[in-house]
Amino acid sequence: NIMKKNKNIKRNEGALMSKGQKLWKRSKQVIPGGNMLLSKRSEMHLPENWPSYFSKTSGCSVWDLDGNHFYDYYLMGVGTNILGYSHPDVDKAVIEVINNGNMSTLNAPEEVALAEKLIELDSWAGMVRFARTGGEANAVAIRIARAASGKDGVAICGYHGWHDWYLSANLGDSGDKLSKHLLPGLSTVGVPKSLEDSVHPFNYNDINHLESIIKSKSIGVIKMEVLRNFEPQDNFLKKVRKLASDNNIVLIFDECTSGFRECYGGLHKKYNVFPDIAVYGKTLGNGYAISAIVGKEDIMQSAQSTFISSTFWTERIGSAAALKTLEVMEKEKPWEHAKIIGKNIRNIWNIVSKENNIEISINGLLALSSFTINSKNSLAYKTLITQEFLKRGYLAGTVLYSSLAHKVNEFEEYANILNGIFSMIADCENGMDIQNLLDGPICQSGFKRLN
Amino acid sequence: NIMKKNKNIKRNEGALMSKGQKLWKRSKQVIPGGNMLLSKRSEMHLPENWPSYFSKTSGCSVWDLDGNHFYDYYLMGVGTNILGYSHPDVDKAVIEVINNGNMSTLNAPEEVALAEKLIELDSWAGMVRFARTGGEANAVAIRIARAASGKDGVAICGYHGWHDWYLSANLGDSGDKLSKHLLPGLSTVGVPKSLEDSVHPFNYNDINHLESIIKSKSIGVIKMEVLRNFEPQDNFLKKVRKLASDNNIVLIFDECTSGFRECYGGLHKKYNVFPDIAVYGKTLGNGYAISAIVGKEDIMQSAQSTFISSTFWTERIGSAAALKTLEVMEKEKPWEHAKIIGKNIRNIWNIVSKENNIEISINGLLALSSFTINSKNSLAYKTLITQEFLKRGYLAGTVLYSSLAHKVNEFEEYANILNGIFSMIADCENGMDIQNLLDGPICQSGFKRLN
Repeated sequence: NIMKKNKNIKRNEGALMSKGQKLWKRSKQVIPGGNMLLSKRSEMHLPENWPSYFSKTSGCSVWDLDGNHFYDYYLMGVGTNILGYSHPDVDKAVIEVINNGNMSTLNAPEEVALAEKLIELDSWAGMVRFARTGGEANAVAIRIARAASGKDGVAICGYHGWHDWYLSANLGDSGDKLSKHLLPGLSTVGVPKSLEDSVHPFNYNDINHLESIIKSKSIGVIKMEVLRNFEPQDNFLKKVRKLASDNNIVLIFDECTSGFRECYGGLHKKYNVFPDIAVYGKTLGNGYAISAIVGKEDIMQSAQSTFISSTFWTERIGSAAALKTLEVMEKEKPWEHAKIIGKNIRNIWNIVSKENNIEISINGLLALSSFTINSKNSLAYKTLITQEFLKRGYLAGTVLYSSLAHKVNEFEEYANILNGIFSMIADCENGMDIQNLLDGPICQSGFKRLN
Repeated sequence: NIMKKNKNIKRNEGALMSKGQKLWKRSKQVIPGGNMLLSKRSEMHLPENWPSYFSKTSGCSVWDLDGNHFYDYYLMGVGTNILGYSHPDVDKAVIEVINNGNMSTLNAPEEVALAEKLIELDSWAGMVRFARTGGEANAVAIRIARAASGKDGVAICGYHGWHDWYLSANLGDSGDKLSKHLLPGLSTVGVPKSLEDSVHPFNYNDINHLESIIKSKSIGVIKMEVLRNFEPQDNFLKKVRKLASDNNIVLIFDECTSGFRECYGGLHKKYNVFPDIAVYGKTLGNGYAISAIVGKEDIMQSAQSTFISSTFWTERIGSAAALKTLEVMEKEKPWEHAKIIGKNIRNIWNIVSKENNIEISINGLLALSSFTINSKNSLAYKTLITQEFLKRGYLAGTVLYSSLAHKVNEFEEYANILNGIFSMIADCENGMDIQNLLDGPICQSGFKRLN
């Protein structure tokens, strides 16, 4: 019975004061911000008590530095591991590459096979380039698109990485334009001020907004995520496509996050709207570093008129991992399973929140489901959820990036724990002080300086 | 006797019309430019006859797709593999990471150990960030330095990657400013025109040039390679350091190529001149994708005031490979051996060229030795050298990136082959038509470091 109240499950105190927390404190002394990804900062999850580091993974299991075991009902590598952690076929392909040699003066043949495979997936496309990270891939796509269009102006919608071209949208006096797309309060320190007025954010589902930008600015490129929190309404994607085509604008879909979550390829396939360039990242190598820029031949050939070259893009692990991941995906269709898992957890969230009279909003693709508690204390409640799950051996919060390794019939304990936590939250909504329940500070919700 | 003329060594005809060439032709249909690195294009080496792709590596051995064996007396992964290919200790560390899990929602502890190790190497430094490629690492360093200095203006000397900030140096009417630093005739197609006048190249060993740039432009950052083809003269590096300090300019040494070639760390250690930030790449993971930005604490903390974040920077292979590579380097001191190999091959080049009355110029760090034949046909001769070596089982040309896997007592055959080729070149200088000796087109001259 998933409704069983369960406030007093034995706490795994070993997870507190962990080796991981000690190492995280050390890390902040030598790495500004502590690591290389905002979403993996301990302060974003459970300040002072997050395990922070892993020693081992398998399926949806993660072990911390103290050997504690956790089920990852949470971020799964921040969206990378849709096949689950340590997938045997992908790992085997990578180890084979290492045994044969991962780098040489000559090229890796896997690059060509991977390019051909991606073109097979995207029948509208003709050519491919690779990079190692999503930010890089987006910067390469922008360079190629600007080269093809001959214009520097870009209209954007969504999150597209840390590079100058993207952050420049926030330059100037007109305020925090990226707050709806990335993070509020994002500074432009270190981004060349001359880039002001080159990148223009438009609101999702607001075709008039995009149209007015195109009319008033010299736009050569539209770059957007196909969908983040809301479904496209009133043929929004088709209208964007038409605006781009009518105005000789290169349309880029950033599928780094959305790719392979709903079908074999980009989310755009579901809506039958096709870009000029699609960018893939996160899921492409199931946790190995690889990203791809897939585009129409005439546009991609513009890459030959500009210099885009980097040694480590040729390293063999990336293309070999992606090739095997695509092969496994084709067979296993992880997006089908991920959608079922998403429906399942939404069902639990709905039942548990109703049972405890807590109002929540549910967002995102099924495979990337998340909820927010509609309360001024929502961030404190999120912290409580993470804290209490952690004590019971789960990495969890208000989001699940689902994977092949999650099983529908293994959610009973999760539901019981969540029900216990929601009953505590209900007490708080009825007057109990949430601070009394938290073992440490409330988690951060965005970009903040760490000490 | 290395002077033995040797024109008639049995030719390995199997290397011609290879599977690799067929795949390279296929690749150019699906990847603009055929691959992701200019220096690995077949046309840069032996158009129509380069093996192009590898199946296997070991030590300084490479096998192509037909199973032909070649000794790599050439680029060694374009400078990545200073310990040789498939180094057993580094590979073992990476395979262990894969067996334990290479990615998770939590962080890789190797990041902290690697950051601490790099700070140990660079006692002037206090903090570190990581990326996967050299271009990325340079872009991160520029962002941090601009954030720290509060100014967008950058003075550069050398090659620093493909990103907008760097290529923008060529914008405007004043011509091909990067021709001395990167490639002649490099187009700025796709680079935002508003970046014009933000990046200013200065000539190596010309302190007055740099001084005049600092006087006339608002420069916040100086970024340079410590040494390219010529030794610093008249305390050039010390004068650059003083100019930077006197003008509150952040000094970045790009050690992606030069790092670990002469000592345990950056080349700047040899000259006892210390930057505010050093960037490491190529050799850091002995062929695995990892790069590092190492800097003074107060400057690196500026990374906290700007958004620099990417999922695949957190993948575990990079930091684990670098950590093991540094450990092996500390023990084996590959730069000592690489210098000996460099001296050895320069000796052969000198003897063989004198014996055949061919004038050559030798350039570069000992570990990155190269020569040019002083003739209007130099590019055709380079092509001939590569062609004839390839027939005899060597990847070779006019450069050697030396590694631990090259042995001084194994250069006799190389010297004999080179002597035979130089005798053919001497015939050409005396009237024979070089075209009659070439099986295919002359190679392209791409990235050539000039001053």
